Amino acid sequence: MIVREKDPENLEMQFAQLEGAITSTEQFYVRSHFSVPEIDLRKWRLKIEGAVAREQDFTCEELRKFPARTIEATLECAGNSRIFLVPKAKGVQWELGAVGNAEWTGVPLQTVLQEAGVAQSAVEVILEGADHGSIAEPPRPAGEINFTRSLPLEKAMDDVLLAYEMNGQPLTPAHGFPLRAIVPGWYGVASIKWLQRIVVTEKPFVGYFQSVDYGYWQPTDDGPVLRPLQEMQVKAEIARPTLHETLPANANYLIGGAAWSAAEIAGVEVSTDGGAAWKNATLLGASKPNAWRLWEFPWTTPEGPCRRTLLARAIDSLGRRQPEKHDQNRGSYMINHWLPIEVEIR
Amino acid sequence: MIVREKDPENLEMQFAQLEGAITSTEQFYVRSHFSVPEIDLRKWRLKIEGAVAREQDFTCEELRKFPARTIEATLECAGNSRIFLVPKAKGVQWELGAVGNAEWTGVPLQTVLQEAGVAQSAVEVILEGADHGSIAEPPRPAGEINFTRSLPLEKAMDDVLLAYEMNGQPLTPAHGFPLRAIVPGWYGVASIKWLQRIVVTEKPFVGYFQSVDYGYWQPTDDGPVLRPLQEMQVKAEIARPTLHETLPANANYLIGGAAWSAAEIAGVEVSTDGGAAWKNATLLGASKPNAWRLWEFPWTTPEGPCRRTLLARAIDSLGRRQPEKHDQNRGSYMINHWLPIEVEIR
Repeated sequence: MIVREKDPENLEMQFAQLEGAITSTEQFYVRSHFSVPEIDLRKWRLKIEGAVAREQDFTCEELRKFPARTIEATLECAGNSRIFLVPKAKGVQWELGAVGNAEWTGVPLQTVLQEAGVAQSAVEVILEGADHGSIAEPPRPAGEINFTRSLPLEKAMDDVLLAYEMNGQPLTPAHGFPLRAIVPGWYGVASIKWLQRIVVTEKPFVGYFQSVDYGYWQPTDDGPVLRPLQEMQVKAEIARPTLHETLPANANYLIGGAAWSAAEIAGVEVSTDGGAAWKNATLLGASKPNAWRLWEFPWTTPEGPCRRTLLARAIDSLGRRQPEKHDQNRGSYMINHWLPIEVEIR
Repeated sequence: MIVREKDPENLEMQFAQLEGAITSTEQFYVRSHFSVPEIDLRKWRLKIEGAVAREQDFTCEELRKFPARTIEATLECAGNSRIFLVPKAKGVQWELGAVGNAEWTGVPLQTVLQEAGVAQSAVEVILEGADHGSIAEPPRPAGEINFTRSLPLEKAMDDVLLAYEMNGQPLTPAHGFPLRAIVPGWYGVASIKWLQRIVVTEKPFVGYFQSVDYGYWQPTDDGPVLRPLQEMQVKAEIARPTLHETLPANANYLIGGAAWSAAEIAGVEVSTDGGAAWKNATLLGASKPNAWRLWEFPWTTPEGPCRRTLLARAIDSLGRRQPEKHDQNRGSYMINHWLPIEVEIR
């Protein structure tokens, strides 16, 4: 793993090591805002509160008694590929590997919400992690806050999972043991780790991590409005070759990578000349909802010595394409423009 | 005036020159975020749009045909007294004079909204100024934006004035000519200058100047939430003596100042010993809704040479008092803690 920050730990996958659709737990990127919280499992409970008929809490054993569900889901950090931004943007300097695809097992959020009985007046569901700390830069709330974020009720009742297993094993501490949310199709920030409390609310929640941080500006007729980051944007990344890798001239080389979106991936195109010409890559395996799709593209390298800029761009089943340039209304997030991979041919 | 910023112009009243309840237009503080916009009066219209039965626009002459209303209203910049913050906070370094009280004449916002016919589904009213520019610091929207802010429909239909006169004369360019909002009881930021468009909306507007800027953190059971600054907080300021002024020993000195709140001022107390003892000041004149109240406090200065710290604190008709310390959840805004005025006695 590439260590982007030591304390709290922010670890990036070496994206060149991409192999198969499932990312191992050891290789899966870690994004932490505060220290890993200490959790005493004997005392730990998941609390359900707010606009519900029956406030209640669950032990781990009680959660495991509900019918379990296993899904594959890709999580990408909303700031993944930040190193490609010019000018340089504040935040963890991720290259390509703050993304991964794993198998998650747990109980649907819908199940525990139905158990608690959601009020007619409910509009959102707040997920609160046990991780907490203070924020340095203004505008910031005073004192310590928990890592907390809300979902619209519709999403909460749809496909959100409360996961206690990752790739068939109990969650590791870094990935949210004993329980985390998995919010399919959304940036990783929504998939709250160390989940300890669920609050059903009757009005929208405007917490720090969905406004000043992890927000973006949506243009409207009345000017830009601040919105929480939600759905992952369509994106293809090149895993091989890597940036500044030297390749032999006049040789067969298999360019490869992954692509994902909040919808299905419909296609990936590759350019080996900096964007002048584009050709279709081959999508591998079968499409699965909420999981990335691996792809490859056979390339005969040119005469050397020279330099080439490789690009990949995806299109999804809703016709959404990657933009050529980063949209400044997204600040240092949602980075899905064409990412240049320059290589040397010798 | 004290020039706090030259471009755009941000000018502060010399608060020691406070005299009488009305601040002259020449002395009234100027808070600008962008350059004064150029307005061609022949083309200028106030547009009313959005969730209304009849979208329409008005010329200045048409607005002047509605029954006029004149009110006295105190406006305070939400960052007034920022120099008193420790540690130093970003923003215009106002001392005491980013506040003033003037007479405003215009047409009630309610009148034009009724003329347009507000939809049952309406929840807010956006006020858009003609002033525009770009924001430097992230998180910020891309490109240029107008100075825009929203009001809950209830406030918009209550006492908001669309003012074309200040102290009996047409507005000056610096104060929003030809038309500005006056939002009584609220921080000055709400009283949009160079008003050009009113949009009735069916969902809350989360613009830049009421979230990332001009917002504060309200504590809740679910953690702090970001809210737009609205009502002015109860506050007394000492106009005389001034910070570090030298006063004669064993002499009669009349301490004086002003106090305001979103409600009526019920009392002002003064301490001449840094907050150990407090005595009532005398409120001057009669209480008027939305206008500040002048006050005075006769003091016999002690033996010298020595140093004294003077403090004033107000209480309003709703029992709200000034806090001893600045609340960090308010960031660099809503600064109404006890402000120390240190003086030398010789």
